[in-house]
Amino acid sequence: MKKLINKVDDVVTESLAGMYAAHPDLIKVLPEYKTVVRASAPKPKVAVISGGGSGHEPMHGGFVGYGMLDAACAGEVFTSPTPEQMYEAAKATNGGKGIFFLVKNYTGDVMNFQMAADLLKGDGVEVEQVVVNDDVAVKDSTWTAGRRGVGGTVLIEKIIGAYAQAGASLAEVKELAERLNANVRTMGMALTSCTVPAAGKPTFDLPNDEIELGIGIHGEPGRERVKQKTSAEIVEYLAGAVVSDLPFKAGNEVLAFVNGMGGTPLIELFVVYNDLKKFLDGKGITIARNLVGNYITSLDMQGCSITLLKLDSQTKALWDYPVKTPALRWGK
Amino acid sequence: MKKLINKVDDVVTESLAGMYAAHPDLIKVLPEYKTVVRASAPKPKVAVISGGGSGHEPMHGGFVGYGMLDAACAGEVFTSPTPEQMYEAAKATNGGKGIFFLVKNYTGDVMNFQMAADLLKGDGVEVEQVVVNDDVAVKDSTWTAGRRGVGGTVLIEKIIGAYAQAGASLAEVKELAERLNANVRTMGMALTSCTVPAAGKPTFDLPNDEIELGIGIHGEPGRERVKQKTSAEIVEYLAGAVVSDLPFKAGNEVLAFVNGMGGTPLIELFVVYNDLKKFLDGKGITIARNLVGNYITSLDMQGCSITLLKLDSQTKALWDYPVKTPALRWGK
Repeated sequence: MKKLINKVDDVVTESLAGMYAAHPDLIKVLPEYKTVVRASAPKPKVAVISGGGSGHEPMHGGFVGYGMLDAACAGEVFTSPTPEQMYEAAKATNGGKGIFFLVKNYTGDVMNFQMAADLLKGDGVEVEQVVVNDDVAVKDSTWTAGRRGVGGTVLIEKIIGAYAQAGASLAEVKELAERLNANVRTMGMALTSCTVPAAGKPTFDLPNDEIELGIGIHGEPGRERVKQKTSAEIVEYLAGAVVSDLPFKAGNEVLAFVNGMGGTPLIELFVVYNDLKKFLDGKGITIARNLVGNYITSLDMQGCSITLLKLDSQTKALWDYPVKTPALRWGK
Repeated sequence: MKKLINKVDDVVTESLAGMYAAHPDLIKVLPEYKTVVRASAPKPKVAVISGGGSGHEPMHGGFVGYGMLDAACAGEVFTSPTPEQMYEAAKATNGGKGIFFLVKNYTGDVMNFQMAADLLKGDGVEVEQVVVNDDVAVKDSTWTAGRRGVGGTVLIEKIIGAYAQAGASLAEVKELAERLNANVRTMGMALTSCTVPAAGKPTFDLPNDEIELGIGIHGEPGRERVKQKTSAEIVEYLAGAVVSDLPFKAGNEVLAFVNGMGGTPLIELFVVYNDLKKFLDGKGITIARNLVGNYITSLDMQGCSITLLKLDSQTKALWDYPVKTPALRWGK
């Protein structure tokens, strides 16, 4: 294993410290809780909090800031953060308008956010949560009952973050998060495995001429391993599964998100986006907004995922709303 | 070779088409010249143009837009664009205030930009150029006489792009580019080789427990191959060479740029930045601005480079100036 790290046990702590050192104007870190919070307390508003295992950077800590998250709890690599972290994140960002947890559907995350919610309710704090489960690849997986939460999470965090920033109530944020989750679908693939620092070797073996379709963001098994395919063929497989699942239909306006798995260079992601645009054009589906880059990653895995979110005028406007975080920034 | 591509010969064309499809509000592409230009003609100003071989995305095409480049010419992977491309880029963006070419120091790029400049001068167009040569690793290299142009290019493009946007004259832009080049130094390293699509196999072999220090952005040899080191040791080596070369001194304010080589995930780049901050703190050098991410890449290479640029009040303000490009965006 070759990585730009020091001690394996210090990777998460040092990476968070580095992100803080680079962005002290936007974020601060509660080191004892491995939690990223906004640099300054926002005005009274619903606090939007997410979190999960590390190894998916910039998600979630890179999305803390104006117009997106109020806090993000980082677990060890591919390991859920604890209820204590989530509880402390809520305490640190509670603006009196309630706490909203956005949770990816992995058993540990779901259980721990639920425990934190129960603790907060015991303190008299209003808490709501929504579990994201946008991965169409498989039902039930290594660490999941039901579908996994993947790329859609990034889009939901951006849009509900804007909504909360603009003054939406806790009930409104929850309703929108549920609606977004109902309208977003994702599927991913891998050219190579990732290597978890503590394991020191690739999570799985993939022959030099094979790819895995439907992979999870921790390297969990997908639908099938096949001989190498072209970008256009991969897009047809992934986007085909995504489109037919919701289903997305001719006339729909969508946000199209081509995400890199961490080790994929931008030159390739734009080739994929080019094929996705052609694929959706052929189906009469209009890309009204897009996002291309490495936003929800699996350490150094090479591969990509394709996410489509059906948009309406409200969610388009919230996507365009100003955002100022380490990883996403526009309009401000 | 596993990559997210279609035909090897179409990678650059399709990637540019994908970038355009994702950002039609910011850029357009002159397909016959593989050149990215701004979506709409800027007001009369100095046109700042760069370019070079592809494989370094988002550089240069991802830096076209308000406050940065007016055009970027893309060669094939790791191959200089032609004088014709540069000439057409200048024709398409000439605002009547002169053309400024920012050139990385590789023999083909230098020769071709010079030929384009000569052609333009023959047409009566004012042209100036500066050759960036910030890599302290080696003198003379595979495709370079003198030092290579690497990470400093990104910073110079941002700062002179802002200067031109704010109305600086051609002579002023040239003077500032020369001053920036005199005050910026970089050194890089690799954990793994890159794989050029047309070659189909890694450019060089690097054993599983070795890294290469001083690597070039096309995989050109660096200073030495050594056994794997920690992030802190790598920072000490790279930043040590950078600091002692200028030299940077206690009391200096710098822009610190930790760049990923394309296959390096953000979790690692922030570990490196954390070590760089400590290293510079120890020398009394203040990081006044920073940039962390994959901005000048070598396809799928894993590794990083460290760039330091000495700042003054003018260049700090120009760094902060609004920028709106596919890859860098703030303040607007």
